[in-house]
Order: sequence, then C-alpha cells, then structure tokens
Amino acid sequence: MINVGIIGATGYAGEQLVWILNNHSKVNIEFISSYNYSNERYSEIYNNYYSFFQQICIDTEEALNKLELIDVLFIALPHSKSFEITRKALQLGVKVIDLGADFRLNSEEEYETWYGAQHGYPEVLKDAVYGLTEVKREEIKKSSLIANPGCYPTASILGLAPLLKNSLIDDRSIIIDAKSGVSGAGRAATIGNIFSECNESIKAYSVGKHRHTPEIEQELGKVSGKDIILSFTPHLVPMNRGILATCYSRLKNKITKEDVLELYRNFYRNEYFIKIIDVLPETRWVKGSNLCHIGIEVDSRTDRVIVVSAIDNLIKGAAGQAVQNMNVMFGIEETKGLDFVAMFP
Amino acid sequence: MINVGIIGATGYAGEQLVWILNNHSKVNIEFISSYNYSNERYSEIYNNYYSFFQQICIDTEEALNKLELIDVLFIALPHSKSFEITRKALQLGVKVIDLGADFRLNSEEEYETWYGAQHGYPEVLKDAVYGLTEVKREEIKKSSLIANPGCYPTASILGLAPLLKNSLIDDRSIIIDAKSGVSGAGRAATIGNIFSECNESIKAYSVGKHRHTPEIEQELGKVSGKDIILSFTPHLVPMNRGILATCYSRLKNKITKEDVLELYRNFYRNEYFIKIIDVLPETRWVKGSNLCHIGIEVDSRTDRVIVVSAIDNLIKGAAGQAVQNMNVMFGIEETKGLDFVAMFP
Amino acid sequence: MINVGIIGATGYAGEQLVWILNNHSKVNIEFISSYNYSNERYSEIYNNYYSFFQQICIDTEEALNKLELIDVLFIALPHSKSFEITRKALQLGVKVIDLGADFRLNSEEEYETWYGAQHGYPEVLKDAVYGLTEVKREEIKKSSLIANPGCYPTASILGLAPLLKNSLIDDRSIIIDAKSGVSGAGRAATIGNIFSECNESIKAYSVGKHRHTPEIEQELGKVSGKDIILSFTPHLVPMNRGILATCYSRLKNKITKEDVLELYRNFYRNEYFIKIIDVLPETRWVKGSNLCHIGIEVDSRTDRVIVVSAIDNLIKGAAGQAVQNMNVMFGIEETKGLDFVAMFP
Amino acid sequence: MINVGIIGATGYAGEQLVWILNNHSKVNIEFISSYNYSNERYSEIYNNYYSFFQQICIDTEEALNKLELIDVLFIALPHSKSFEITRKALQLGVKVIDLGADFRLNSEEEYETWYGAQHGYPEVLKDAVYGLTEVKREEIKKSSLIANPGCYPTASILGLAPLLKNSLIDDRSIIIDAKSGVSGAGRAATIGNIFSECNESIKAYSVGKHRHTPEIEQELGKVSGKDIILSFTPHLVPMNRGILATCYSRLKNKITKEDVLELYRNFYRNEYFIKIIDVLPETRWVKGSNLCHIGIEVDSRTDRVIVVSAIDNLIKGAAGQAVQNMNVMFGIEETKGLDFVAMFP
Repeated sequence: MINVGIIGATGYAGEQLVWILNNHSKVNIEFISSYNYSNERYSEIYNNYYSFFQQICIDTEEALNKLELIDVLFIALPHSKSFEITRKALQLGVKVIDLGADFRLNSEEEYETWYGAQHGYPEVLKDAVYGLTEVKREEIKKSSLIANPGCYPTASILGLAPLLKNSLIDDRSIIIDAKSGVSGAGRAATIGNIFSECNESIKAYSVGKHRHTPEIEQELGKVSGKDIILSFTPHLVPMNRGILATCYSRLKNKITKEDVLELYRNFYRNEYFIKIIDVLPETRWVKGSNLCHIGIEVDSRTDRVIVVSAIDNLIKGAAGQAVQNMNVMFGIEETKGLDFVAMFP
Repeated sequence: MINVGIIGATGYAGEQLVWILNNHSKVNIEFISSYNYSNERYSEIYNNYYSFFQQICIDTEEALNKLELIDVLFIALPHSKSFEITRKALQLGVKVIDLGADFRLNSEEEYETWYGAQHGYPEVLKDAVYGLTEVKREEIKKSSLIANPGCYPTASILGLAPLLKNSLIDDRSIIIDAKSGVSGAGRAATIGNIFSECNESIKAYSVGKHRHTPEIEQELGKVSGKDIILSFTPHLVPMNRGILATCYSRLKNKITKEDVLELYRNFYRNEYFIKIIDVLPETRWVKGSNLCHIGIEVDSRTDRVIVVSAIDNLIKGAAGQAVQNMNVMFGIEETKGLDFVAMFP
Repeated sequence: MINVGIIGATGYAGEQLVWILNNHSKVNIEFISSYNYSNERYSEIYNNYYSFFQQICIDTEEALNKLELIDVLFIALPHSKSFEITRKALQLGVKVIDLGADFRLNSEEEYETWYGAQHGYPEVLKDAVYGLTEVKREEIKKSSLIANPGCYPTASILGLAPLLKNSLIDDRSIIIDAKSGVSGAGRAATIGNIFSECNESIKAYSVGKHRHTPEIEQELGKVSGKDIILSFTPHLVPMNRGILATCYSRLKNKITKEDVLELYRNFYRNEYFIKIIDVLPETRWVKGSNLCHIGIEVDSRTDRVIVVSAIDNLIKGAAGQAVQNMNVMFGIEETKGLDFVAMFP
Repeated sequence: MINVGIIGATGYAGEQLVWILNNHSKVNIEFISSYNYSNERYSEIYNNYYSFFQQICIDTEEALNKLELIDVLFIALPHSKSFEITRKALQLGVKVIDLGADFRLNSEEEYETWYGAQHGYPEVLKDAVYGLTEVKREEIKKSSLIANPGCYPTASILGLAPLLKNSLIDDRSIIIDAKSGVSGAGRAATIGNIFSECNESIKAYSVGKHRHTPEIEQELGKVSGKDIILSFTPHLVPMNRGILATCYSRLKNKITKEDVLELYRNFYRNEYFIKIIDVLPETRWVKGSNLCHIGIEVDSRTDRVIVVSAIDNLIKGAAGQAVQNMNVMFGIEETKGLDFVAMFP
C-alpha cells in the first residue's frame, strides 16, 4: 500500500486526485488538506463523495506534521506555493508530485521571467523531472520530485514530439492553437468564471504570453535537440472538461499522411494511453479518461502537417498523469487506477 | 462468467451497457447488434472505445442465431420492438432484461392505451418483473424476464415509495415535476434534438400524457396498496445527462423534516445505491454513477412534503440498473461493475 | 425626452436596462452608477457597448447629487439597499422604479419575516405599486414608486391570474415549479455561480422558503380576493436566460382545455406582450423579448390544470418590465423600446 | 419600400433574414419559401414569430411565379441549388443576394474542384460581386448579383485584409484557426448535430479541405495583389452562435502592436460595423449584432502578428451582411435594420 497525502485537495485537480486515488487498489489516502475548506468534510464540499469518502480537510500546517506517515505527497496549488512544502517533504524522504508550475522549468531565471516571482527552491530544479510519463518514464522511475506537466503542454508536447524527434518540420514554424474547457480556469470565484460570462462564447487569452509556453518550448527543445520558439494560443470554450490542441507546422520534405501516421504509431507503439486514430480527435471521446487521442492531416497545398490532440484536462492533463507518474515511481502497473474508457455522452 | 448479448447496442442506453459490461469482471459480451449500424465497428461509431472494444455490430437476425451462446440478453430498443426477440430468447432459456417499455405495464390494455400499439406477447406479462431493484429484489432473483424501469419512473418511485409505504400522504395529491438531460431523448436525428434547438432553452412536454405515467402509478399503487393517480410532467433541460424529480404531495398529519429523513434512511438502510442526503440533490453529484440521491423538505405553511431525487438517466435510469438486475439474477455481488463515484465536474 | 438615471447599472438587470434604454427613442440616460465599478467606462465592463455607449459609472453619492437632473430613477440593487435612495428621489419629486425587493411586499412585517432585515422606509409602502403592468396598469399610471416584480413572480402571476380571477381552481392546491437560467443568480463571483458548477446539472433550491413566495401569494391573493398560500420551488438550469414556470392546480369543476384557453385569451386580449399559444411554451421562443408565452393543459385524469409560462428573466422578468412601467407612467406608447421578436437560435 | 422574397426561409440563415427584414422599416417581405415546410405557417415552425409574422411558406415553384412582385430575392440554400433560381430572377430584372456558395468563386473550375459539382450558371460569374460590404462597397452599389460571403471568410478576410493590403506579412505564413457555434452546421437533422453529440466537446473538421478556403484565398489575393495560399481549420464549439477566427502570420519587419492597431483603425475608420478593440474579442460581445470585433497581438518572440476577429455567424456572417448589402444596393442607409448592440448575457 502506498500512503499518500494531498495538499490542495479541494481545487479541481485535487478533486480528481481524490476521485482516482480513492478508487486505486494500491493506495491509502492518509490525509487531504485545503486552504479554504480546512476542518470541512470533503463529502460536504463535493457531494458526489457522500458515503464514499469520509475524510475531513486538514490545514497545511497539520498536513506538514503528517508527512512522516506518507510515501508520496501530491501538491495541487497555485504557482509559488509549493516551494516550502516540497522542501519539507523531500527532507523527510517523502516523494513529491507537484501538479503546479513550480518545478517545471529547469531554469530559475525562466521561472522568474514568466511567473513574475522569485523561485523559492532553485537548488532542487536539477533533480526535478518533468512528469510527461511517455517521454520521461525512465527518469521518473528514479526521481523523488516530479513536476507534473501543465494541461496544455501535455496535449501539445504529445502531439508534436514525434515530428520533432524525427526532424520532419521546420522548428520555427510551430503554432499551437489550443482550446480548453472552463475547469481549466480552476475553482476560483471570479466574475470571469461565472456561468453566464463563459457560456455561449469563446475567446483567446494570454496570446503570446501564456505561462505554459516556456514549458512546451523547453520540453520540445529537448526532444528535438534544438532550441524551440513557438506560438501558443489558449482559448476558453464553454464546456466543463477537455483540451484540444491544433498544432501547425511546416514540413521540411514531402511526406504522406499515412507515413506520418505510421511514424506516430511507431513512436507511441508501447504507450497504453496514447491512441493514434484515423479520424480527427474530439474531446468527448477522451472525457473522463487518462487517454490522449492524436489525429493527423497533411496539407500538401501548404506543405503543412496539422496534428490534433485531445485530452481530458483534469485527468491526463493533471491528476491522471500524476497518478500515472506515481505508479511508475513505485514500480506498480502503470495503468493501475487509470484504466477507464471515456464516458460518453 | 456470464455471457451476454446486447440488442440495440448503438443507442445511448445500449452504449452505456457496453461501457459498464465491458468493464465488468464477471461478464463476457458475446455479441452486440444494431439496426442502423450493422457490420460497423463499434469503436468507429463511438470513438471512446478505440482499442478498448473491438467488436463489430451484427444485425438482429444474426443476433437471434446466437442466442444459444448467451445466458442473458439485454434489449435496448424503442417500444413494440421487443416482443418477438423476447419470445425467442425465453424459449431458448435465455434470460431477458428489456430496457424498453414492452413488459413494464402488467396490463395488456394499459399498454395499448398508452402506447397506441397492440401488445405482441401478453402471455408473459404475469411473469415479467418490474426491475426497480431496491423494490423488487426478491422477485428479480427468481425471474427470467426483467422489465427495466423507465428513467423518470426510477427517480420518481424511489423518491415517493417511502411516503406511500408509510401512508404519510394524501394519495390524490401527488405531483411529479421531472427534468431530464437531452440524452433521454435518445440518439435520434430529429430537428428537435439538434444542439441549437435544445441549448439555451427549457420546455415541458407530453404534459398529462407521458408514457411513463402509468408505470409510476402502477408501481406506487403496489407500494401503497391503493390505486394511485398522479400528475407527471417531464421537462427537457440543456445538459447531456441527469434527471431531477421534484415530487410534491400533501401530508396527512404534521411531521418534521427530520422524522421524514429518518423514515427514508430506515426504508433504504440496506441499499447501497440510494443515498438520503441532508441537502437538496443536484444531478452533477450522481452523474456517471448508479446512485440515486434523495433530499427532503417539509413545508409546514402548505402541509406539503417535497421530495427531490436525482439520478443519472443513462445509468441508474437505464443501463446501470439493468446490470444491477443482472447481478441480482445471477447471484453475484449487486454492486459488481457499478461501484463508481460520480465524475465531477 | 425622459431623463433617467440608473443605480446598479453593472449587474445583469442594470445592464439590460442600459441595453433597452440606450436604444429607446424617448429616453436620455443621464447617469449610470455602480458600487463595484465606479469610475470605470461601461463599455470596458461590457464590451458589447464599445463605441455605442460612452458613459462612465459614477458612484452612488454622485448619483444622488444628480437626482435633480432626472425624471425617473431605476434602482437595480440587492434587497435593503433601496430605502434611502428612494427616499431622496421621492423627496425631490423624482419617480422611482425599483427592480429590487424593497417595496414589493405591502406589509412591513412580511418584509422583515422573509428578508430577515428591518424595513427602512415603511411609510411609503402604501403608495408603492407592484409593477406587473398587465395587472396594475391604471395604478402605475398614477404612481411615483413602482416596485418592479421579481422574475419568478412575473411568470407565475401572469400564468395563474386568469384561473384565480375566474375562481376556477381550489386555492389551496397551487404548486409552482419554476426553472431559471443562471443569469437569475446575478453577476456575483461565487463558487456556486462558476461555469463548471452550474453546467451539466440541475437543482432545486430554497424549497419552501424562497423570497419570491410572499410576493406571488400577495398578488394572487388580490386577484382572487382570498388569501392564497401556495408552494413555490425554484430550480437552476444550465442556460443563460429564461424562466419557465410550470403551475399546477386542481380544477373546481370540469372544463376543457379549449375553454381555459379561450378564457385566457379573453383575459389578456388587449395585452401586447402576453401570448396565449396553442402549444407548450419554451424559453427559447421568448429569449431576448419582453413577451410572456403561456400554454395550457387540462388533465382530466387528475382534474388538474397545468399552466406553463415562459419569459426572459432579464427582460419581462426585470428590465423590460421596468421600462414598460416607465412608458406607462410617462404616458408614452407602452411598447416603445420593447417591441422586439425573440432572437433564435 | 423594397419588396423582397426569401427562398430557403426556414434554415437558420433564412430565419435570421426574416428576423431582420420583418423589422426593417424600408422592407416589405412579399413571400417566403421553403423546401421542407411549404404550406406551413412560419410562426408554427419558429414560435418566436407568434403574432409577429403571419406568413405561410410557399414552395419554390410558387416563389418563382412571384418574382415579378419583388425588387430583390434572397436565396439561402445549400450549394448548387441557386443556379436556376438566380437565372430566372436576373432575367426578370430582380436583383439577387445569394447567401449560398454558388457565385462566390470567380472561377468555374475552382467551384467544381472544391464543391465536386458542375457549375450551372458560369456565364454570370464575371458579374457576381463578392458581398463583403466593407471591401466591395462600390461594386455592390452597381451589382445585380451578390454572392454573400461565407461565415468563416467574413471573419477571416476582415481580420487579415489590413495586413495584406499593407504588405506587412509573409503571404505564405498565414494560418487561420477558426471556431464556430453549432448553428453554423445548419438546421439539419443529423446524428452529428444532436445536442448530446456536440455538447461538452470540441473538434476540428475538414482540416485542409474546407470549402471556405478558396473563398478566403481568392479575396485576400485580390486585397494583396498576389496569390495567397493559406491554412484554414474550422472547429465546432458547443454554443449556438458566434465565430472566432484566430489568424496567425509572420511579420516581414518589426512593428509594434500599437502601430498595427493604428493601421487597422485607419483601414476601417469609416466602417460602422468593424470595431478595432484594445482587448481580445469574445464572441459574446458581438452575439446578436452585425458587428465584427477585431483585436491584435504582436508576438516579438516569434515575429508573428496574431489577429483575432469575432462575429455572429448568422448575422454579420450571413443574414445581417446580406441585408447590409441590400441597403447598399438600394441606396438606403447602410445600417438600416442592423443597428443593434449585442445581447449579453
């Protein structure tokens, strides 16, 4: 049994962690903590847990006092909140899977540039592993600190890695136009998150400056062996869950769609959660699953390849991938607790 | 291993059967059939099954030729389509769970009145068991033909049965105002089902004449020991899944909310899937689960008790309850394959 | 030209006032005020006004200093906020149309019971007119203080008034089951209003204790000449706009649907905004209009009449009716500025 | 008074024509026709017209017999259906505004390539004017045949024209990633259009081969004076109305966002319906209006300019622009009947 603690259990990513881990046959949830709901019963915050999960949220301080009871700590907090918690956990030999942004960028300076905040624990950055399981599995096995990828980067990197690994595209030509459901904005009581403000509308936001950009560039850079600079544009779509990333790039040489598909199938041939499909992905077919669907078109008129990838932002894009990483870290079956088909409709 | 066949596997109820049964550790899906998609690969109709379920839809005739291979047949067809199929299955000793309406009403005349069609297999009506598991468990155990309840009746009867069983309410005072997501209208390509026609609107329909009315009256009549005549009004709500039934009735005598809650908790004390909650139900807390949440208010100003019940129309209101009945019929754990917490958000 | 001021212009009801009044050929908007957005440009809060409406929100104090410039003041604030503002306006001879709840109940005690707050200006209650235009037109013409009806009461009273006026129903048998879009909850940044918390769900709330109940009972009581006590249950539906009220009551005597329809058509024969339709209403057909659609079913099995009424909660249920009342008060054409067909889809 | 006829009045674009023209003070709707609903009362198909519009749909043959009664014919039919109707109208001296695709492409061959159908009236292509009003106003004034632009091309061309006119961008670098509400798919009873199939999902479709592509390339080619080949990808978003086009291209030289904004403001300085806004557009702010909102970002990291444009697909993207063109053709005020602020929420 793996004993786990969850800090930030009442946000949407935290809630998905509880959903998955509470049903995971090798896991015991030792504690859950919350900043806004400490001392409240979890099943009264999220009524779907009524009679299924009896724990009460503790506060962060209590959580830190219980670190000795656990093997791994999941942290699902806004950026800049994980530094001290991670330090304490690691010092006690507790593994950490951070769903936030604090350890994703290898460079302290990059962090400070994009997040506008000082990095509070830079000495550990060299040991942190970017937890995109399919790309970093071997490193994850040996790591004590996983920086779980952002939701957009998960869809984007999985979609583009095979092209860059095989040097098929002009590395200055990449444009990622991504679309997310509103749960991606978190469980924050803001005017912008109100139903009537999001429903019946779509918008782009943070154009040219979204904080997931450097994360995508960093990891695709490693895959390609070159510096990657790309355009990333997120959009907000009136649905609860799902990310669709439409990824454009210029082909260096002529290649058919079939050959690109073959290359993708080969690249991901051992990956349970990545499905290269013959048609174009739709987020409904991955909703509620840890899967990533990838579809391809080659447009010979423009010499572009268009890769479309779809994930559930809260599962493969957050909690599911975090558990996948935990499974890898602890040497248990990678699909344990995550082997569910998308729920449709 | 229970070998099952599914006729009508490509409608929404059929799809949920596949979703649940494909993941059920004691079940082997022997065949799936479809009127509109025979010879098509299921995972190309519903892409969420890509690589998870490889079967191809057969047509009804082929399905009937395979009845000897199975232990139980699930039928998910429009009304009046199950008579002959059921006859053949029962003759071969195959148990039948019909998710349609053909065997729900005990009276051939009632069927013909409400459905405007002749009943094609009336001789079996006395043996058919109305499959509301919590109410008919003992009969279900011994039955070969289950008439799986309608989605609205499931929510309505579960909500009102304790009041009638305990003679707390005036039996002429019952009004059920029910609201359903659009998946309840089935996977039918009609103008009325188009996104833009359903979205951003709510309507009542079939007021005073919905075909689920006699089914509710029949079963509540059995619970109460008296003829029940009630008002039932369904509404269409712009969401995929969920039914909320708001049930009004007049109390015969003063009673507190706490006492009614206590009585409900007692009535359902051994029921895993029925949760009497302290607050009012919302469909999001049962979406994707086989649960029924029930909440209560007593309004002393009007001497009315208002019971609100919530289910997922496709699971507890259709496929989930069908599998629950199968579990009961075959003597396996009732929650097998159905033990999941609602997925939120 | 009627010079108007709007206090509370940045809530949804206030925004609809701006939308209507800015396009009203007999109106000049002299000022708009806001608690949360004072000194902000309106078109930066609501971008649809970009280049169409150039005003900047002032604060309440400034607004009060400008009362002398206007003929009528619209107030769209939460309850208990209108007392002092109304006092000042009336003292200066400025007419007031209050879209909030402060002057709707004739009795100070009722107000304090239902709102849990002291009434701050009870001496004016006898002069305030409940602004349901179709019912109170003659009084509105002569009034200086209009208490604009709540959204639910507008749909409910319009739906039930003809039955009660004609003594057709048992006045203890009334149940109103109402459903509203999320804009009815206001532009408040709360967890409950977040898109992902409202979308894909429906719930009942404030069962037996919603504050619109006494307002409905008071006004239907006047129509019927008897005290009315009824059940009113509001529900939250995942759509932006619209209210559907499904109103149940027991008929005293047999009557056909056609006769009830005839009676309704006669009752509202001179009313431009009330449409008695042959089919059942759907909110989409009134969305964006000042109309109320009413449909009827008589259920002879249960001796009940079911009246379904549909409005746009922000227009006929708030700002549209307020402008309709203004038109009546100032002796201009009642439909001025309000004569638009619903926008579909 | 302009006498108009509408062929194809019961699709969504046709319905919007009725909505706008019925309220247009200079227009008399002489007839409406429908293939699927001939002899049916319009207000029974679209209940929002109850008591506001009393006409009955005629069939196409009847419509053609009434051409002499009208000044202009609006045609809102699927492609390849307008050839003969247009021929008859033009021969009788009736002006034609075709909302379909039949006269948008200047080249018969291009039409046959992209639409897979023979062009039935090629001799008139040289006279047909592509009715993007802001770009072709002078030609529209003198034309008898307007090919009203597609919804996606309207947003795309308006967004990109100023960049190309000023030779600011690499003309091989253009990528348009567009997102549309479901009404764009038309009022067709298909499985793909069902609420539960569209809701809670987003998808790309027709990647690299959507029929609006040549239309965009043709018109941007004229603006730039060079052949344009670009990538255009449409997406389906779960909302009723709205198109957002996110347009990427590579800047030839360094330029600031402020300079690009200034250039856009200058380009559209006399255009009532085009608004260059300081923030990024959202479709909610143009919903229900004939406006196009355009926002700009310059990303110096990638040397790209990203233009985002938003329209209501049924108004500026279809019926509104058609009426705008009619106004221009008949020399009346261009904004007549179209001067409304977006309805929010």
